[in-house]
Amino acid sequence: MKTLKQIIEQRDTVRGRTFDLAIQALIVVSLITFSIETLPDLSPTLRNLLHAIELITVVIFTVEYILRVIIADNKIRFITSFFGVIDLVAILPFYVTAGIDLRAFRAFRLLRLFRIFKLARYSVAVRRFHRAFLIAREEIVLFFCVTVILLFLAAVGIYYFENQAQPERFRSVFHSLWWAVATLTTVGYGDVYPITAGGRIFTFFVLLIGLGIVSVPAGLVSSALSKAREFENPC
Amino acid sequence: MKTLKQIIEQRDTVRGRTFDLAIQALIVVSLITFSIETLPDLSPTLRNLLHAIELITVVIFTVEYILRVIIADNKIRFITSFFGVIDLVAILPFYVTAGIDLRAFRAFRLLRLFRIFKLARYSVAVRRFHRAFLIAREEIVLFFCVTVILLFLAAVGIYYFENQAQPERFRSVFHSLWWAVATLTTVGYGDVYPITAGGRIFTFFVLLIGLGIVSVPAGLVSSALSKAREFENPC
Amino acid sequence: MKTLKQIIEQRDTVRGRTFDLAIQALIVVSLITFSIETLPDLSPTLRNLLHAIELITVVIFTVEYILRVIIADNKIRFITSFFGVIDLVAILPFYVTAGIDLRAFRAFRLLRLFRIFKLARYSVAVRRFHRAFLIAREEIVLFFCVTVILLFLAAVGIYYFENQAQPERFRSVFHSLWWAVATLTTVGYGDVYPITAGGRIFTFFVLLIGLGIVSVPAGLVSSALSKAREFENPC
Amino acid sequence: MKTLKQIIEQRDTVRGRTFDLAIQALIVVSLITFSIETLPDLSPTLRNLLHAIELITVVIFTVEYILRVIIADNKIRFITSFFGVIDLVAILPFYVTAGIDLRAFRAFRLLRLFRIFKLARYSVAVRRFHRAFLIAREEIVLFFCVTVILLFLAAVGIYYFENQAQPERFRSVFHSLWWAVATLTTVGYGDVYPITAGGRIFTFFVLLIGLGIVSVPAGLVSSALSKAREFENPC
Repeated sequence: MKTLKQIIEQRDTVRGRTFDLAIQALIVVSLITFSIETLPDLSPTLRNLLHAIELITVVIFTVEYILRVIIADNKIRFITSFFGVIDLVAILPFYVTAGIDLRAFRAFRLLRLFRIFKLARYSVAVRRFHRAFLIAREEIVLFFCVTVILLFLAAVGIYYFENQAQPERFRSVFHSLWWAVATLTTVGYGDVYPITAGGRIFTFFVLLIGLGIVSVPAGLVSSALSKAREFENPC
Repeated sequence: MKTLKQIIEQRDTVRGRTFDLAIQALIVVSLITFSIETLPDLSPTLRNLLHAIELITVVIFTVEYILRVIIADNKIRFITSFFGVIDLVAILPFYVTAGIDLRAFRAFRLLRLFRIFKLARYSVAVRRFHRAFLIAREEIVLFFCVTVILLFLAAVGIYYFENQAQPERFRSVFHSLWWAVATLTTVGYGDVYPITAGGRIFTFFVLLIGLGIVSVPAGLVSSALSKAREFENPC
Repeated sequence: MKTLKQIIEQRDTVRGRTFDLAIQALIVVSLITFSIETLPDLSPTLRNLLHAIELITVVIFTVEYILRVIIADNKIRFITSFFGVIDLVAILPFYVTAGIDLRAFRAFRLLRLFRIFKLARYSVAVRRFHRAFLIAREEIVLFFCVTVILLFLAAVGIYYFENQAQPERFRSVFHSLWWAVATLTTVGYGDVYPITAGGRIFTFFVLLIGLGIVSVPAGLVSSALSKAREFENPC
Repeated sequence: MKTLKQIIEQRDTVRGRTFDLAIQALIVVSLITFSIETLPDLSPTLRNLLHAIELITVVIFTVEYILRVIIADNKIRFITSFFGVIDLVAILPFYVTAGIDLRAFRAFRLLRLFRIFKLARYSVAVRRFHRAFLIAREEIVLFFCVTVILLFLAAVGIYYFENQAQPERFRSVFHSLWWAVATLTTVGYGDVYPITAGGRIFTFFVLLIGLGIVSVPAGLVSSALSKAREFENPC
């Protein structure tokens, strides 16, 4: 019992790290099989193989979940904790949807993706990112708000400039918002773009102001990470 | 009277914060109804509902404006202040255009968007952004100028390279400016791009120099924000 | 004579600043007329007006150039200096091409654009940018080299992946270089993009490495600018 | 013998630097001829010229390699070193494929590109970049992982939103991954983009979170480079 606890809960022993790595590898395997299953025109043989792999991974994750519940000092606290819920939600759809039709099954399977956060769970490095986020939280939230306001203003502006020239593409403020998102993030798919002189001059000013705002959070995160690192190694 | 003043003008009391949050929520509601109204093919029922919501929000904003004027110690100073004008301009179009035809009404309604700055008015966080802007103002203005010069040089250059190969898309320096904006901001819609070897090599050099200039302001803003934060918490 | 020198060469007197601003305004006017002249289908009246404006600006710039030569303590040094050459080159094409055919005239006129550097000449702020560039020069040159190598490697790689699938678009390493430029700068016009699975996976890795390299110089410039500012105001 | 060693291995003497520069120039020549050879429709004369240049460069690189082996104090250590292997691999394909058919020859020739790392070999500046990479290594690896997880989550999400509306473009999670790569790097070719309202709102949130993650490593590298520079010049 004590050995089991060491294997599953501890990270600084050889056994604990081997167990963690094995679970991480299994999550990656589970995600790859999930991705392959979305491919159309799979051969029945391959499909059966994928189902077999899925069955095995779900069984292992179930055993892991049960062991974690047994080991936990405070069982109710574990079950209601963030990762306790995630662990359950990752395996539950398989059992719940076992007898039902396929479509619903596919939709529920999306929840299995939360297993990816298990990867994060085992990683020490995520903590530093979390600390960096806390340092720059206020500014990130502020820039989030400013970005949303800017997107809205840009959408309304372009709607008035382009609505008559391209009634289909800039049909409403909501359609214009899609243009604002694609433009201010500089993705620029090319499915919607201004064609009037007014719309283009407006785009120019929106980009000039917008780029100085939308790409700021990345700079905030990277400078906060430097500070979080200095916090760990003050020298 | 004194109570009313506390509710409307103060932010650190429970009543004041509740009032502020209510006004903010109302602005968001007003913007959403405005956006929905731009959708084509709305049912008459929904259109009536939207008009009703609009009427209610405008009435509330009018009452708020009148109360602010009554409360203000220096009434003329409030009315001529930035937010005093914004508050008036946000409600005026509704009354002015009430009897006139619909098209002009729609055009004037754009002014109502300035209500969004009311959101900023209530937010303390905007001040920090303002301070950061003041720290990096000189560099931001310089880079704004350099960016404009660079855009112009890029437009003239590409005009000479591409005008003959694509006379329709690079018709003049102004048409080439649109290409310069879309390229140097890395949006790249794909509606205009060079096809000659010369134009492509020119684009390569313009991008090499341009990216090191156009994306600098964001870095300036983010480092200025760090400094503004250190200014608040010097320790 | 002494007064003239004060007006033209000094910047901290009222007269000097007025003269500088007037010349700057004239350069902007000259550039706008230049741009308008590239528009097709201009009316003869407008064309005549533009030619008149051009004549006036060139005459003023000629007078300015002659005055600068007369005023200069060391005339030969001024004429051979960077801005001395630029000033001459900005007005010379007008006189040289006055009698010749129009096409050559248009090509030579491009040189007039160097007048834009006159704008910079009057600006104190450019010096700070220059100092920042000197601070980060080594890294910027290094990243320039790494970017060029990366672009070449990306072009060769995508050529081997996509040449057979899209022989027209990825015809040679040079054609692939155009793809590499448009992709690594994240412009992404959409005229060339990989369609094979191999080419797409290669693009993924190129972007993952490339973005961490191509966008670094902007960060270098912005941090160097902070240092240049601290150098000016050490407190 | 001693003189030869000075020429080839030392960098601070005039002879050594001349030799280094000559080899670097030759690598650039070799890469340019390689690129030109990929052009279709070359005249036989040019093709012969390119082959002649190739022959000469390979012979010189072979002589250089042999000299380096002879000069090396520990021959086996040099041959098995990174640049020893690269040097051999850069010239071997030419001899190995001399008698065989052309197609295979072309494929093997790609290895010659590793000669480009010889350029790096002679550059002192690369060391600073290496040191900067070591400083920010942990964060870069973390962000690499987070980016991969984010790309996967984005791909799965968009697959569920767009698969039914665009079954051809979002055929599987793997096809959606291509969209995720092109979108989160803000390249945005425009070959795949969401068309459903759900997909577009999902794209908005993915970009809002993603831009704050994908573009962070560049900031990390640039701040690490500043630290590496301070490390060299502590004053």
